[in-house]
Amino acid sequence: MASTPGQVIKCKAAVAWEAGKPLVIEEVEVSPPQAMEVRVKILFTSSATPTSSSGSQGSDTRVPRILGHEAAGIVESVGEGVTDLQPGDHVLPVFTGECKECDHCKSEESNMCTLLRIDPDRGVMIGDGKSRFSINGKPIYHFLGTSTFSEYTVVHVGCLAKINPLAPWKRSACFGATVNVAKPKKGSSVAVFGLGAVGLAAAEGARVSGASRIIGVDLNSDRFEQAKKFGVTEFVNPKDHDRPVQEVIAEMTGGGVDRSVECTGNINAMISAFECVHDGWGVAVLVGVPPKDAVFKTSPVNFLCERTLKGTFYGNYKPRTDIPCLVEKYMNKEMELEKFITHEVPFSEINKAFDLMVSGEGLRCLIRMEN
Amino acid sequence: MASTPGQVIKCKAAVAWEAGKPLVIEEVEVSPPQAMEVRVKILFTSSATPTSSSGSQGSDTRVPRILGHEAAGIVESVGEGVTDLQPGDHVLPVFTGECKECDHCKSEESNMCTLLRIDPDRGVMIGDGKSRFSINGKPIYHFLGTSTFSEYTVVHVGCLAKINPLAPWKRSACFGATVNVAKPKKGSSVAVFGLGAVGLAAAEGARVSGASRIIGVDLNSDRFEQAKKFGVTEFVNPKDHDRPVQEVIAEMTGGGVDRSVECTGNINAMISAFECVHDGWGVAVLVGVPPKDAVFKTSPVNFLCERTLKGTFYGNYKPRTDIPCLVEKYMNKEMELEKFITHEVPFSEINKAFDLMVSGEGLRCLIRMEN
Repeated sequence: MASTPGQVIKCKAAVAWEAGKPLVIEEVEVSPPQAMEVRVKILFTSSATPTSSSGSQGSDTRVPRILGHEAAGIVESVGEGVTDLQPGDHVLPVFTGECKECDHCKSEESNMCTLLRIDPDRGVMIGDGKSRFSINGKPIYHFLGTSTFSEYTVVHVGCLAKINPLAPWKRSACFGATVNVAKPKKGSSVAVFGLGAVGLAAAEGARVSGASRIIGVDLNSDRFEQAKKFGVTEFVNPKDHDRPVQEVIAEMTGGGVDRSVECTGNINAMISAFECVHDGWGVAVLVGVPPKDAVFKTSPVNFLCERTLKGTFYGNYKPRTDIPCLVEKYMNKEMELEKFITHEVPFSEINKAFDLMVSGEGLRCLIRMEN
Repeated sequence: MASTPGQVIKCKAAVAWEAGKPLVIEEVEVSPPQAMEVRVKILFTSSATPTSSSGSQGSDTRVPRILGHEAAGIVESVGEGVTDLQPGDHVLPVFTGECKECDHCKSEESNMCTLLRIDPDRGVMIGDGKSRFSINGKPIYHFLGTSTFSEYTVVHVGCLAKINPLAPWKRSACFGATVNVAKPKKGSSVAVFGLGAVGLAAAEGARVSGASRIIGVDLNSDRFEQAKKFGVTEFVNPKDHDRPVQEVIAEMTGGGVDRSVECTGNINAMISAFECVHDGWGVAVLVGVPPKDAVFKTSPVNFLCERTLKGTFYGNYKPRTDIPCLVEKYMNKEMELEKFITHEVPFSEINKAFDLMVSGEGLRCLIRMEN
């Protein structure tokens, strides 16, 4: 690696040439990092079960593009002004950043960095508005500031969490979906809408917090068996009922659950997730990303009866500050990641990873960059 | 008073014979309290500026009825099973109750008692479904379980807060609107929608909490002068702008206020109050009661950007548990009530109290039962 800093690196990347079509492994050129940027050698990346109707993987229209936003890698070189990372550091690229200087980064309550907040539409680096990827000189767009489906990628330093070098690569690469907001009390009831990777992480969080009833809601009943491993105790498939699922849940729980977490991004599920919490104290948390034109509608009386609705983004974690601590928690066995990883494929078979996820067979598929 | 227990009491009450028409002072019969009920001699009652479009005073259709829900009085006699009150106790009737036995009363988070929760449609006692008021044997409906526009009224024991007998009657009777939820931090910015009695109580609460900017929003610019006394530092009249008030507030505050409190019950104000809070950490609290068919609509992305929306009912206070403590706070000069009382009339002039409030001239008018 000693000879690469400052040079263009030629390496393999999976390129999305057309929205919704399989990715194609190509040889790409990766430029050196510019000011406040870091070039990272990716070791493992992953793909997770889509639970959102807006499906970020492969359905994007800004092509050609290099996708991928969950990974673990090692710093190859750093650009000007980067002081807190150096070659050899172990890092996790994160699709949302932490500049540490804006109002959001300075607020204890927010993780929505003004500078580096997620932007699915931006396909270039924020420093100079250009791409660091090209094929024969033709630029290839970035994705979510991470583009981890490449042997090398360039990321803004604010979008990299530096982690303990003793953390196992394979596990760290799957540090995607965690939920930090619902915080159910011991003995409480929780409803989780959507039993993909995100929903099961929420269920696992509720289980660890001591929730006594975790009601999983999904349109696919096949997911229930797997969900039991994550603490889900009861299952409701809205298709099995001829009335709104919030009414079914209210009946099951004597008025509603204490907490609910919505992980699908479907607008009707969002409304149900809010309306199924108990009046007086219920809190609903939205996690799933809705289509852009979705409208949330409910009677304001549902709020006045002392229900709370909030949303969270990236589980309310500040990426550079909190992720390293979460990795430590994993290493101290306070968190489990193994059961979230159901499959593993070599980079050359990356499209198989998506097939497994889309079919619902797998929860999260690890993609190994080196054979 | 010694001879009245167990007897029907004949006394004066202001009767609403027709929705929206002036009240008429009549001689009514008040039956003795039945099981779990208390008969109370009212000394002072009050009327407050209507901020809600659903206007509870006088616009009700269940007639004939005795209105009134803010008052201070003295226990005349108690019914079977009442153990924590006795004749001579000083009490405040409250339009929502606390049975101390249901899930809500047992929850630390809720004050929405299952048994005694506010019910604007019920005009009778919950024990036997009958009224304790009559004129020549013809029943007159109760209102909100309180019906304080009468020299004597009968109230469920769960809707009476027992207060320090040293508390001044006149002040205690105006212990209506308090807000316990927005809890702004020191130095934060707060928007208050609606500058009637409830909104000004919210502003006063924000001021006491140390908010540095309190932005009052009202369609009536005349209210600004008075609002300054309650800590409002800036004023926005939505009529003065050709864009949504949430945009105006976002511009004034560099992205939105830290907290907002909605006290009008107007659905558009509710939406504005939510959308004007800052992403990342903003919390909006709904207090005003909307019309029954109102629909709250917003983009779910407003939640996902880490905004919180909640509602409160009766300021989240448990009436029997918390109101006596608030009265103590007032007596220790930690709270101010004087400035909320702008007028006083004798009972015989009760209709003048409403005129003053409807015209916006007064904030709260004390009604003195004895001349």
